[in-house]
Amino acid sequence: MKNIFDLVLNKINEFNTPCCIGLDPDLNYIPTQIKKKSLEQYGNTTQGAANALFEFNKKIIDATEDIVGIYKLQIAFYEQYGSYGMQAFIDTTKYLKSKNKIVIGDIKRNDIGNTAKAYADAYIGKVKLFDSEESIYNTDIVTINGYLGEDSIKPFIETANKYTKGLFILSKTSNKSSSEFQDTYASCNNTSLKNYLLMMELINKWGKGTEGEAGYKIAGAVFGLTFSEEIKKVREKYKECFFLVPGYGSQGGEAKDTAHFFNKNGEGAIITSSRQIIYAYKNSKKYTGDNFQDAAREETLKMKKLICEII
Amino acid sequence: MKNIFDLVLNKINEFNTPCCIGLDPDLNYIPTQIKKKSLEQYGNTTQGAANALFEFNKKIIDATEDIVGIYKLQIAFYEQYGSYGMQAFIDTTKYLKSKNKIVIGDIKRNDIGNTAKAYADAYIGKVKLFDSEESIYNTDIVTINGYLGEDSIKPFIETANKYTKGLFILSKTSNKSSSEFQDTYASCNNTSLKNYLLMMELINKWGKGTEGEAGYKIAGAVFGLTFSEEIKKVREKYKECFFLVPGYGSQGGEAKDTAHFFNKNGEGAIITSSRQIIYAYKNSKKYTGDNFQDAAREETLKMKKLICEII
Repeated sequence: MKNIFDLVLNKINEFNTPCCIGLDPDLNYIPTQIKKKSLEQYGNTTQGAANALFEFNKKIIDATEDIVGIYKLQIAFYEQYGSYGMQAFIDTTKYLKSKNKIVIGDIKRNDIGNTAKAYADAYIGKVKLFDSEESIYNTDIVTINGYLGEDSIKPFIETANKYTKGLFILSKTSNKSSSEFQDTYASCNNTSLKNYLLMMELINKWGKGTEGEAGYKIAGAVFGLTFSEEIKKVREKYKECFFLVPGYGSQGGEAKDTAHFFNKNGEGAIITSSRQIIYAYKNSKKYTGDNFQDAAREETLKMKKLICEII
Repeated sequence: MKNIFDLVLNKINEFNTPCCIGLDPDLNYIPTQIKKKSLEQYGNTTQGAANALFEFNKKIIDATEDIVGIYKLQIAFYEQYGSYGMQAFIDTTKYLKSKNKIVIGDIKRNDIGNTAKAYADAYIGKVKLFDSEESIYNTDIVTINGYLGEDSIKPFIETANKYTKGLFILSKTSNKSSSEFQDTYASCNNTSLKNYLLMMELINKWGKGTEGEAGYKIAGAVFGLTFSEEIKKVREKYKECFFLVPGYGSQGGEAKDTAHFFNKNGEGAIITSSRQIIYAYKNSKKYTGDNFQDAAREETLKMKKLICEII
């Protein structure tokens, strides 16, 4: 039976790239003309700010929809503007789904039992209202945190199975101090493993039996591009794991680093870039705030080309 | 200088209890008359569901405000209803703050650098709009996850310091499978510690220099009441750590288990109970959906009395 990563692979083939655009809209970097219009229309309010995010996103999506099939939304950038911000997240997802995109909700949520179920229902399943069920955030894959153990993961796995959705569990995050906890050695089955490798073992266990046609489990892992040495053995050992790979561009990861994140057939990873793409106009002499979307398109094409050469 | 836990201690003294009511409103358990009214007013929509949550919360708060000073909101129960759900979270917090309550946002968020800052600004700081800064969720203390290491915690510490707010970082969670990852032995400074103890070491380090007048650091820890044996050495070692203790009632924790969570002076922990209190009418012959708030009050008084006897 097909699972979410079969659909992801189809999308990657359709657009001939495993690249993903991260929609992390930041009011500080959104071009003036968008902010001005939102401010005029809604005033200096969270509604105005949220409207600016959505207008910005639409321009980026319109300018890149023919070249990329996967988008990631970092929810903190929306959530910070309260209920209107969350609506901008929902509206952006809806806009992407109307264009048949794969949408990754970078939510890094986790909790125990029935609370985890509420998150799973909301983001990748359906939520019960008074007398019907409704999709709320309607993302395809969510990032989650495995610190709480299996009973916090199970509701996500069950919901993902039911609705052909997926998850990426944090293993090795792209930030510098990820080493502090994730690289500490832990004992596991009489051997010693760093914590992020213990997490890989657990991810592998939690996803057992969820393999799709291409062999990937519906529980993948987040693994930072900034750790391209560390991925080598991990990639070799966990062939059935699909990776979400942040850290390209602004965080220092380069195209050459992506090589080890793919299986031998060139599959098994999504490489995501946010700031480097969506704010490309800021680092360019050719583009301004008036044609920022063209700068984003050019930067995406550049990333696509570089990573295509690697695979 | 006073920090958040000095304010928490004042509140505990004012109401003579470290008990906290968890507002985890679940449509399945909200009394029919509240649901009926919301359904009539807003239809079978997320707005209707969110309205029912807020109306339910207000009744619970009104019935308990003279006996408890601290409330905790598990955000998943609001977030699942989209933007209206988030507004119900904001409205409930606002209602609690208008009554001078301490509000704990049980959000369990975490992320890297600037994303963590967005969460911190939103929940315990201020968010920049076009030309002003605004409090958005306005909680006093948030729960967060430390898996990503120091640079994901720092923005929360800095914001908490600036606005006299606090955080509880997950150490040992109350669920059964918390042992899976949290009890694995990790090597730390030539000794071997379980992961939740490694996390305690980190929490202690991250909070350095933030002690208030009573000596508590602004970075406390979440430690499940279901692990009352494990807390003994932890309580003794980390005297400057304030604990948020979930797991009372429905999850199996009893009043006698709380004893070891307090320092010798009877301070240093908040004991929180959600379902057992807010849905008390479900387990009672005396109360129905029409006076559910009185059942919640009675259950709160019972919990207060039992825990008071322990301290």
